[in-house]
Amino acid sequence: MTSTLGPRVQVNPDLAREREKATFNGEKLAQLLRGGADNLRRKRYVESLAQNDPLLKRLPNTVHLSREQQYELSMWRNIHIKQRIEELNLTDPLEIHYYRTTANPNDNSPISLNEGMFIPTIQKQGTEEQLEKWLPLAKSYKIIGTYGQTELGHGTFIRGIETTATYDPKTREFIMNSPTLSSIKYWPGNLGKSVTHSLVLAQLYTKNKCHGIHMFLVPLRSLDNHMPFPGIEVGDIGPKFGFNCNDNGYLRMTNYRIPRENMLMRYSKVFEDGTFVKPENTKLLYGSMVFIRALIVSDSATNLGKACTIAIRYSAVRRQTEVRPGGEELQILDYQTQQSRLLPLLASAYAFHLTTLAMIKTYLRVDSDIEEGKLGEMNQLHALASGLKGFTSWVAASGIEQCRLCCGGHGYSMASGLPKIYTNFVPSCTYEGENMILMLQTARYLLKCYAKIRQGEELPSVVSYLGQNLTIKSSITEQFDLASILMAYQHRAARLLKVAGDKISRLVRSGCAQEDAWNKTSVQSAEAAMAYCHAYTVEIFVEWTQDHVTDPAIQKVISSLCRLYGVYGICQNLGDFMQDGYLSSHQADLLKAKYLDLLAEIRTNAVALVDSLDFSDTVLESALGRFDGNVYEALYEYAKNSPLNKTEVHETYHKYLKPFMRAVALVVAMMYDVTVPSAPPFSREQSAHIQNSVPEYSEAVLSFQNEDTPKMSHP
Amino acid sequence: MTSTLGPRVQVNPDLAREREKATFNGEKLAQLLRGGADNLRRKRYVESLAQNDPLLKRLPNTVHLSREQQYELSMWRNIHIKQRIEELNLTDPLEIHYYRTTANPNDNSPISLNEGMFIPTIQKQGTEEQLEKWLPLAKSYKIIGTYGQTELGHGTFIRGIETTATYDPKTREFIMNSPTLSSIKYWPGNLGKSVTHSLVLAQLYTKNKCHGIHMFLVPLRSLDNHMPFPGIEVGDIGPKFGFNCNDNGYLRMTNYRIPRENMLMRYSKVFEDGTFVKPENTKLLYGSMVFIRALIVSDSATNLGKACTIAIRYSAVRRQTEVRPGGEELQILDYQTQQSRLLPLLASAYAFHLTTLAMIKTYLRVDSDIEEGKLGEMNQLHALASGLKGFTSWVAASGIEQCRLCCGGHGYSMASGLPKIYTNFVPSCTYEGENMILMLQTARYLLKCYAKIRQGEELPSVVSYLGQNLTIKSSITEQFDLASILMAYQHRAARLLKVAGDKISRLVRSGCAQEDAWNKTSVQSAEAAMAYCHAYTVEIFVEWTQDHVTDPAIQKVISSLCRLYGVYGICQNLGDFMQDGYLSSHQADLLKAKYLDLLAEIRTNAVALVDSLDFSDTVLESALGRFDGNVYEALYEYAKNSPLNKTEVHETYHKYLKPFMRAVALVVAMMYDVTVPSAPPFSREQSAHIQNSVPEYSEAVLSFQNEDTPKMSHP
Repeated sequence: MTSTLGPRVQVNPDLAREREKATFNGEKLAQLLRGGADNLRRKRYVESLAQNDPLLKRLPNTVHLSREQQYELSMWRNIHIKQRIEELNLTDPLEIHYYRTTANPNDNSPISLNEGMFIPTIQKQGTEEQLEKWLPLAKSYKIIGTYGQTELGHGTFIRGIETTATYDPKTREFIMNSPTLSSIKYWPGNLGKSVTHSLVLAQLYTKNKCHGIHMFLVPLRSLDNHMPFPGIEVGDIGPKFGFNCNDNGYLRMTNYRIPRENMLMRYSKVFEDGTFVKPENTKLLYGSMVFIRALIVSDSATNLGKACTIAIRYSAVRRQTEVRPGGEELQILDYQTQQSRLLPLLASAYAFHLTTLAMIKTYLRVDSDIEEGKLGEMNQLHALASGLKGFTSWVAASGIEQCRLCCGGHGYSMASGLPKIYTNFVPSCTYEGENMILMLQTARYLLKCYAKIRQGEELPSVVSYLGQNLTIKSSITEQFDLASILMAYQHRAARLLKVAGDKISRLVRSGCAQEDAWNKTSVQSAEAAMAYCHAYTVEIFVEWTQDHVTDPAIQKVISSLCRLYGVYGICQNLGDFMQDGYLSSHQADLLKAKYLDLLAEIRTNAVALVDSLDFSDTVLESALGRFDGNVYEALYEYAKNSPLNKTEVHETYHKYLKPFMRAVALVVAMMYDVTVPSAPPFSREQSAHIQNSVPEYSEAVLSFQNEDTPKMSHP
Repeated sequence: MTSTLGPRVQVNPDLAREREKATFNGEKLAQLLRGGADNLRRKRYVESLAQNDPLLKRLPNTVHLSREQQYELSMWRNIHIKQRIEELNLTDPLEIHYYRTTANPNDNSPISLNEGMFIPTIQKQGTEEQLEKWLPLAKSYKIIGTYGQTELGHGTFIRGIETTATYDPKTREFIMNSPTLSSIKYWPGNLGKSVTHSLVLAQLYTKNKCHGIHMFLVPLRSLDNHMPFPGIEVGDIGPKFGFNCNDNGYLRMTNYRIPRENMLMRYSKVFEDGTFVKPENTKLLYGSMVFIRALIVSDSATNLGKACTIAIRYSAVRRQTEVRPGGEELQILDYQTQQSRLLPLLASAYAFHLTTLAMIKTYLRVDSDIEEGKLGEMNQLHALASGLKGFTSWVAASGIEQCRLCCGGHGYSMASGLPKIYTNFVPSCTYEGENMILMLQTARYLLKCYAKIRQGEELPSVVSYLGQNLTIKSSITEQFDLASILMAYQHRAARLLKVAGDKISRLVRSGCAQEDAWNKTSVQSAEAAMAYCHAYTVEIFVEWTQDHVTDPAIQKVISSLCRLYGVYGICQNLGDFMQDGYLSSHQADLLKAKYLDLLAEIRTNAVALVDSLDFSDTVLESALGRFDGNVYEALYEYAKNSPLNKTEVHETYHKYLKPFMRAVALVVAMMYDVTVPSAPPFSREQSAHIQNSVPEYSEAVLSFQNEDTPKMSHP
């Protein structure tokens, strides 16, 4: 970008100074976070391929486009990306991810679910014949598919799905139906206008009996002209908070017939005569769910990291309020309150990045165990993945908004990039399992562990601390050693689990039904699950700090960041640690003081720490978070490019404002004549005059409705 | 709205049952909240005038419009509203407010600041001659004005404003300049394309001396053709998170001359020869700041109340997951976790509504004192208003998002109304004083009080409890009487203030400069201020419950709601109450148990309690929050109206998708042939083929840029 106000300043001097005074080698830390110098170099190389793509560079900023233009541009962009990835022969999933997220940052795609869900689901649940028939078609984009699960009336609770697939042995077909309003499929991505096929989750009926939910492959649109088939009503669901280039869709089926072969039959089967055969083991499907949730933890780390990068760089550039009269205005990062709002989030971004690495490592180990038939750790991993998805996405979502608010007014402009990061990320609190429901899934697993503890059984090592002696007090001293901090979190998780477990037992003993006892304890169970997840992230951060960081300068700053993560979480949830007397008043005082000391300590390296997260300007899409810190130039540039500025005088002036200024002036001048305070009351003639002038404006505006926009009939 | 899926169901039976089982008369409570039956009737009458306006009814939903269409529609709408208010002869400010917020719900206006800021500021700071000249013009919309304070580089810290007004005695003019990039005015509402004039805050220079910030009335655009004058560069600042019908603008002035008479001179004056005269008392300007902050507390109450109404009604309609196998699915409002996320917010909405009423009452009393020259309570009121603005807007903003997330996936659709409520409300955390800075202003006042306490001076009654004996322990028992709960909050506020005050003294005694001591304690000072504001809202709620609610059935439910507000806040901030041993472990256990009991108790009346807040469907603009509960019908209707559904096959298919499906199919089918797992590597020829097919799509898309959208040059 060339500055319009004179020759381009290289890097904002405040930001340059921040980098100079860093106490560690940021490049080394960046390498460590990405698994070595080679990986980091390769990441940057792949990202540069997207950054330097001359066509992508020329695309307009989507914030200026209407919803339809966004959809259209995104279709083009994602087709281009797909082709470039093949052309460049990128095959490593991580490299494809780097390319995609740089070429289409902070946004969605109208054709992503073909490869993201359609193909993988067929691979997992299809028979050999089905794989042979459908995969070549989908992979070559002769057909494009999506995954249809959510309905108007049911989301996370998939057993409640109402769509039906009724087998007709006479024609050897399934008759697909949306029998109720609430059974209409609603939300599947790419479903509205883009895909030709959808996997559809439906209740299987055969021989007058319901056999529960199964997966069906449903052709929706003609491959000749893309028209929906008779019996299929399909369309876009309208504008959303974000994701507006994605045509999330609805689907209503009326006696729509598909061949018997279109039910995915790797596990359950329906024979030609309608006989239903049950699968032997369905638990094998858990694996991919775990992996997808691990990816959401990764998204939490990435998006919170981006938001911290923007807010912390901006806080180093922005100066506000002289502290001493006549003195220099401080960088807002120097204010303790600003540090307190941002630096714990930076620590969380690091914690979640490390948690992702640990989860993927565990997943790969457990997954290969499962392949060998060892299912021992599966439940434990599933519980961990569910909880961490919920815990990290909640923290990240509110953290991103906190970062935005920390940028003051400018954070509210789309130029900051933060609204887009937020609206694109926050759905992860809901999709792939609503967070609270996931937290309760984790709680169920933990309560089973607790029952085992009470029966004296041994627990897997990851959760063995839940059986600890709860009468021991905290060993935290003024050294704040990481082990004592971790122990505090483990005590808290174990105690909260005991509170929930004992309450359920008590309620059941006193005659309460198991389900009611569960519901009456669910707030406490969710708290226990949150505490468990929190403890896990502290454990991972502590382990990494102690075992993987060898460079002394990096060790020093990472230890402080890890300590901040631990100490902050205790201060924020102090009651949890004090309620049973585990932590003394004196220890609480020490921790609160240490928290403030750590803020000052980490502030020195704050910019270097976000630099090491290695987000390019292309990916941040932010006037405030630019690496060079030239934020005011970028904001001015952004303003000048507003479509409203195409003409000096907007046509709205001629259409409405000018006639209004003339018309009202006639009437109102009489009413408000300030030299005559007791103005005459509003007369009938004046009324009539104004009334007559209304239709002139209104008809012009109302033509919107006929031209472009269907009428939205609000209640 | 007529349902498209059959005859219209009157009211969703679940919602109807909720209303039947309420234990109190909701209409009576609604009257109580609005100051009597007559006031409520009048509110509804005025709102019905807007609801039944045939022209407003026909307007399209703004969520389907582009930014430019939003601006244009909003211009028409707000001109129409302005004319209707005159035609209807509405003069009571509250009634005008009811009319406006119903006719233009959850949205902004491109001509609001003429009456909102321009006229009132002239009235306060103009001389008699200035009032006589400018007010008739502005009131009759012969000119339209706004208020230009914020610059690229400075917001809340107004002394840092860089715009200059240099007096030239030769021509008796001020020369207005934007001397730096960061001095460009940025953000003032309506500034971009709509207004003809702006008040401009600038540093006054005369006789080579700077006299600080003063207010100047600057003509921007010709009254003949709306063109900006030479020396004036003015425009829109581009799309934002919300407020997109408002043309927030930027303004850059270059040696632009205005007459001497255009400086508002009620207080400071510049004579013809350039002599500057200081005002006697500037503190009189505080009053309106207090009033505007009270209005933001009102906005907090209103918007949180709307969000609670939507989420709670939807939670009564939405059913999910059978608790017993084969049993009925529960209303999600029956889940304790859902109650725990929503009902404390409902209590907060009530607390903030009552706080608004109390603040306005206090404001009117203190304002009349000030008129009589009694300035005693002004600082105290100013501190309270600043803090409460911050406290309530933070709670409401995060609460609205919590409500949205509690509606699951459907909360993410614009059909829920919640994204619009959020993006329209959340700027109040930033404008009229950034929240953290306001919190520290309140803290400064409280610390002065604390200094007085230490010197044995008496405090005004509102803050006198800050001097209490801190060694007394909490008197909370299983009765949970409201007085004991209030005392806990006051203890907490007093203790946190002492922690901050003592730390500053200690630091100063040990040689730390006052400013550094202040900054090193600012996190704790802000905590003390938050605790003070929190205690005030509890106090107001308790007082109202005890003194103003006479109906026994209402008394019962309101007492529970008030108790929930108090108990929840203690549980959420338990560490604050336990750190010094004020609250015992046993009391903490009791409070946590009571919290869950209160959730179950209030759940019975949750729908009735939101009904009593009296938000019409017009104001909620929500498919999920409809009074009749027919949410799935409304969501289906919303989807069908999506502009992407104008045609069965979107033009994007013909432009990009179809050619892509054909082109890729040729190449990729070879690569992915699953029957030959060892597919040949990607050849140069295939590469070339794809590359050649790119420009065909890209050029079409890139034409966006030339047609509609200026290129956004991102870094």
